[in-house]
Amino acid sequence: MATDLFDEPDGTREEILAATYRALRTHGYADLTISAIGEEFEKSPSLVYRHYESKDDLVLACLAFMLERFEARMTDDEITDSRRRLEAFLHWGLDEMSSTRYRFVTTLVELRLQATHDEAYQEHFTRSDDVFESHVVEIVQSGVDRGDFQECDPERVAAMLVTIVSGALFRRATSDSAAWPADVQAELEAYLESTVYRD
Amino acid sequence: MATDLFDEPDGTREEILAATYRALRTHGYADLTISAIGEEFEKSPSLVYRHYESKDDLVLACLAFMLERFEARMTDDEITDSRRRLEAFLHWGLDEMSSTRYRFVTTLVELRLQATHDEAYQEHFTRSDDVFESHVVEIVQSGVDRGDFQECDPERVAAMLVTIVSGALFRRATSDSAAWPADVQAELEAYLESTVYRD
Repeated sequence: MATDLFDEPDGTREEILAATYRALRTHGYADLTISAIGEEFEKSPSLVYRHYESKDDLVLACLAFMLERFEARMTDDEITDSRRRLEAFLHWGLDEMSSTRYRFVTTLVELRLQATHDEAYQEHFTRSDDVFESHVVEIVQSGVDRGDFQECDPERVAAMLVTIVSGALFRRATSDSAAWPADVQAELEAYLESTVYRD
Repeated sequence: MATDLFDEPDGTREEILAATYRALRTHGYADLTISAIGEEFEKSPSLVYRHYESKDDLVLACLAFMLERFEARMTDDEITDSRRRLEAFLHWGLDEMSSTRYRFVTTLVELRLQATHDEAYQEHFTRSDDVFESHVVEIVQSGVDRGDFQECDPERVAAMLVTIVSGALFRRATSDSAAWPADVQAELEAYLESTVYRD
């Protein structure tokens, strides 16, 4: 998601959030200012100030919007094969990344850091983890119901997978070692083969 | 580790690093100042300035010292049972935390986030991931050699476990959901039973 999330903003609010997203990607959180967001915004920068009081108001609204879109997409899933649906989620977190996506992920990780000392961010990321876990629970549960997957505990599998993806994104954004992602993918595959997939 | 790491500092340098650690735990990274470190230091604060030029110099030296101690301890392991050695590592990252340890972990995560925009931090955390992975590789390899563990790929298992622990610490420091850690522990146990442990 995310790369084309803001391609066709609908109305002033979404245009402001799109500008926030572009400014975040360009400047990172630490150097983000409301005026940098104003510069990315096609209309009058004063409109930004009229709608939002602070940089964090804007960032949190942008995050909430991204999550809302993700939820909407989840319920409108075109892939029906259970295994491919699960893989689509895992690839998002574990595959090789283009530099655009790397910057996006680094920005997300940087924003998540605000949650160590800001409750509004903590609430957001608690909720977003819940949304991702529910997404995985739904995939695994429907896979079990359809007979595509073994009998397993969807909640436990979801907690495991969301934690692995969180760890992978965290490591990617904060270290430059190259060996581990392929190793994690191979081992994750072995875990899913033995616990979730039916051969 | 870490809780008693600085209990008996040896010489001025270690006393300064111990003061840095205490100041970090009290103030967090964002509010840390050299003068806050000086206040935690038993001797003259001017000694701190004489040894280190900036807050980041101090923090990086403190992190390097902690890692050095961890490496020293790893090679002097009293537990010989392979499975118990692996569990000791995992419990460190996944168990219920006291508030002291929670503050320590949150501080570590906060420091790691500096690596999104500071190469010196990125180098440190790349190295520290390598140290933890080597630790796990050594446990798994010697477990396989002793016949305690199944034939498996120690590098892959290590990449998987370090990524899960990283994700768990990251989630713990930035969200307040309570359900996932027990689920991750149960599922991790299932993964290790099927891939690593010999029953």
